[in-house]
Amino acid sequence: MSAADLRELVGQATRGQARAVARLISLVENAALTPAGAGALREVAAGLAACPRGLGTARVIGLTGSPGVGKSTTTGMLIKAFRRRGARVGVLAVDPSSPFTGGALLGDRVRMQDHATDPEVFIRSMSSRGHLGGLAFSTPQALRVLDAAGCDAVLIETVGVGQAEVEVARLADTTVVVLAPGMGDGVQAAKAGILEIADVFVVNKADREGVQATVRELRAAAGLAETPWRPPIVTTVAVRGEGADDLMAALDKHLGYLEESGEARRRRLARARDEIEAIALTQLRARLADLHGERLDALAERVLAAETDPYTAADDLVAALG
Amino acid sequence: MSAADLRELVGQATRGQARAVARLISLVENAALTPAGAGALREVAAGLAACPRGLGTARVIGLTGSPGVGKSTTTGMLIKAFRRRGARVGVLAVDPSSPFTGGALLGDRVRMQDHATDPEVFIRSMSSRGHLGGLAFSTPQALRVLDAAGCDAVLIETVGVGQAEVEVARLADTTVVVLAPGMGDGVQAAKAGILEIADVFVVNKADREGVQATVRELRAAAGLAETPWRPPIVTTVAVRGEGADDLMAALDKHLGYLEESGEARRRRLARARDEIEAIALTQLRARLADLHGERLDALAERVLAAETDPYTAADDLVAALG
Repeated sequence: MSAADLRELVGQATRGQARAVARLISLVENAALTPAGAGALREVAAGLAACPRGLGTARVIGLTGSPGVGKSTTTGMLIKAFRRRGARVGVLAVDPSSPFTGGALLGDRVRMQDHATDPEVFIRSMSSRGHLGGLAFSTPQALRVLDAAGCDAVLIETVGVGQAEVEVARLADTTVVVLAPGMGDGVQAAKAGILEIADVFVVNKADREGVQATVRELRAAAGLAETPWRPPIVTTVAVRGEGADDLMAALDKHLGYLEESGEARRRRLARARDEIEAIALTQLRARLADLHGERLDALAERVLAAETDPYTAADDLVAALG
Repeated sequence: MSAADLRELVGQATRGQARAVARLISLVENAALTPAGAGALREVAAGLAACPRGLGTARVIGLTGSPGVGKSTTTGMLIKAFRRRGARVGVLAVDPSSPFTGGALLGDRVRMQDHATDPEVFIRSMSSRGHLGGLAFSTPQALRVLDAAGCDAVLIETVGVGQAEVEVARLADTTVVVLAPGMGDGVQAAKAGILEIADVFVVNKADREGVQATVRELRAAAGLAETPWRPPIVTTVAVRGEGADDLMAALDKHLGYLEESGEARRRRLARARDEIEAIALTQLRARLADLHGERLDALAERVLAAETDPYTAADDLVAALG
């Protein structure tokens, strides 16, 4: 793509044109792979920074939780609630089982179609596969594009297991942990360290048995933490839109806390640090892969033949980078 | 730890002493964080390579699947089956909901206790949290220790969503994807790209309704792949040990295929490449974090103030590395 075409694309995206937003996200996800791409990324970054409102105005809300608790339905409920306020909404679905993912084989596409024709809703699925640097690199890039495209709120949906959602949680201003009654999720959440990252708890499917037990269990667990912000627990039946106002109120309250306490700035600084580091590591990884593919193959052969160990081989690789 | 103590510890671990194995895994997980640690890693690598049998003799079996399908019960069944053959068995539980994890709050500890007093079974939970480089770094390190400790089989249990299990699948000689009937798992598995990594399918909880439908769905999906190895589908009721012999037969058949086809060597080479690269990246990340902490803070401030963009900041960081 020529520099002029790139400027045109960035201009369209910052004016909120959906197709341009989608193309630009694909571009920044993939551009890290080539030296020419690295130049394009700088062009794009400069263009995005010059967007009408400036960067950093989007409010970022992460939603995480185990499969089956109703994260996507809750995300759908929040899209509607933000749209009622007239907000432009971005959605990044990092959860491979989310109906928001473009590549879903089956799944509940209906909720997605609620917003498919709304020009003020941008939905994007993020794949952890095939992208150099993984989600730690590609999700912040996509977030910057949605921010520059004038999204007032960006919802990031992740599945609540493993390290990816912890990294993604660091992107959010507010992290919502979604649970459902009777799945032993309180315990599971605590085990996975999810309690540590929750700013707001949603106990969804609150028309089911066991909701009070789940709330009590959460309250007891959350009460142990000695933190200035005590995560509120909101009960919802997202599939019927019940609890939307309570959830929005909890989110707004947390936003107020972030601003008053100075935590907002701390989180945005941490996010900038993470992003710089992820870009630096992705560049280094690309250089390792591109420049030293053959060397790496040869080193792997030597390790397999026990002629060297992997630490010495890694030294060799790092030294060759300089 | 002195060099002499370290040699002693490595010696004990390669003689299969459980406590030494556990301490050595902790050591290699954490040593990448400091320059002194980097030296220790080289000592350990040399010591492990000099283990009686040599490295690379452990057969590595990955088990993955969604929460609730019975991965841990299947792992437990395989531990028993390998123990009946007189094999020494290692287990790495990367799944945060696994009862094999040491830090479980509740969960089913009973199955773990079946083997807790067996000196020929080494069980280790791997956390993705707090380790520089994450599972891509720490899991192969732990695997090398178990290999050197004389484990004939190492079982790696991961939860089947996101990028971690794809990375971990690359560690395994044979990847087992566990599903259960009636959970829509066939579709979920396909969505998450799990079909691509499966060498053997287990449909667990085969006493439940819908098992034949799940098997048919899998067979249809797997039949589409044009690969020399067609993943067999084994039905089990792991909680009662039913299907253990069939599963072991499928694993042995795949092992035979790996050796005959030359795929075994290709996988081990890929594993060595991944390990060298993960070590190199972990070293680079440690250098970024240690040497450039203040610089990174200052760059993050400048990005937040829109005085620079994150790509230019990343360039600055990478340049300072040289």
